[in-house]
Amino acid sequence: MHSHPLRHIIESCDVAISKRDFDSLMDHYSEDAALVVKPGMIVKGKENIRKAFIAISDYFQDQLVVKQGEMQVIEGGGNALVIMETLLRFPDGQGGTVETTRRATYVFRQESDNRWLCAIDNSYGTDLLNAEIV
Amino acid sequence: MHSHPLRHIIESCDVAISKRDFDSLMDHYSEDAALVVKPGMIVKGKENIRKAFIAISDYFQDQLVVKQGEMQVIEGGGNALVIMETLLRFPDGQGGTVETTRRATYVFRQESDNRWLCAIDNSYGTDLLNAEIV
Repeated sequence: MHSHPLRHIIESCDVAISKRDFDSLMDHYSEDAALVVKPGMIVKGKENIRKAFIAISDYFQDQLVVKQGEMQVIEGGGNALVIMETLLRFPDGQGGTVETTRRATYVFRQESDNRWLCAIDNSYGTDLLNAEIV
Repeated sequence: MHSHPLRHIIESCDVAISKRDFDSLMDHYSEDAALVVKPGMIVKGKENIRKAFIAISDYFQDQLVVKQGEMQVIEGGGNALVIMETLLRFPDGQGGTVETTRRATYVFRQESDNRWLCAIDNSYGTDLLNAEIV
């Protein structure tokens, strides 16, 4: 089955988010990375991405749980495109819990020391096209 | 609206495919690019990608027409993730025509001379997850 090193890296990121360990989390992003916070809202650069993750975590009262499902990795041109089922669980604000599945797309870049760093983090995948921003 | 230079590049590629101008087409791919021919079949390197495009064009008897719909570009880490509605029209082999829409994902890398080269060409987008290859 699929045991690409990127699966391990992405799982480490999920654990770091759950533990609010934003230093460890940001180790996996390139300096000039981009994060799609929601359709139409993209933040750029490590420091802004860190702030966005803190805001997201606060918003979900530290109860956001992220898990990975099926994954495919396509490597080319020194990059990897990761296509991944991402399961999210978070409070609905009324005492209940929402569970949702997204098909995320992540672009990782392989550095000269062979480390993979996330360049583009788009957990919305192709669903971005559902929400046209004019 | 969206008028990212990558839209123009991708449109040039579509015209090149329709005209079987594979030299012009390959100008837009990096040496070590990857092309998802179909789920489970990925070819790597410019020469193999060229052969795959020739085979695809032959298979569709030069009647494959590719057009672009809505597009979103996310730039980060020296790369761009393009999410794009791609409309395909081709003969069904029984005298009719098939029209289908895909949500493609392309990764482009910006070179030191600012040119964008396609590193990963995945016209299946997140639908790759529908077709698990074990």
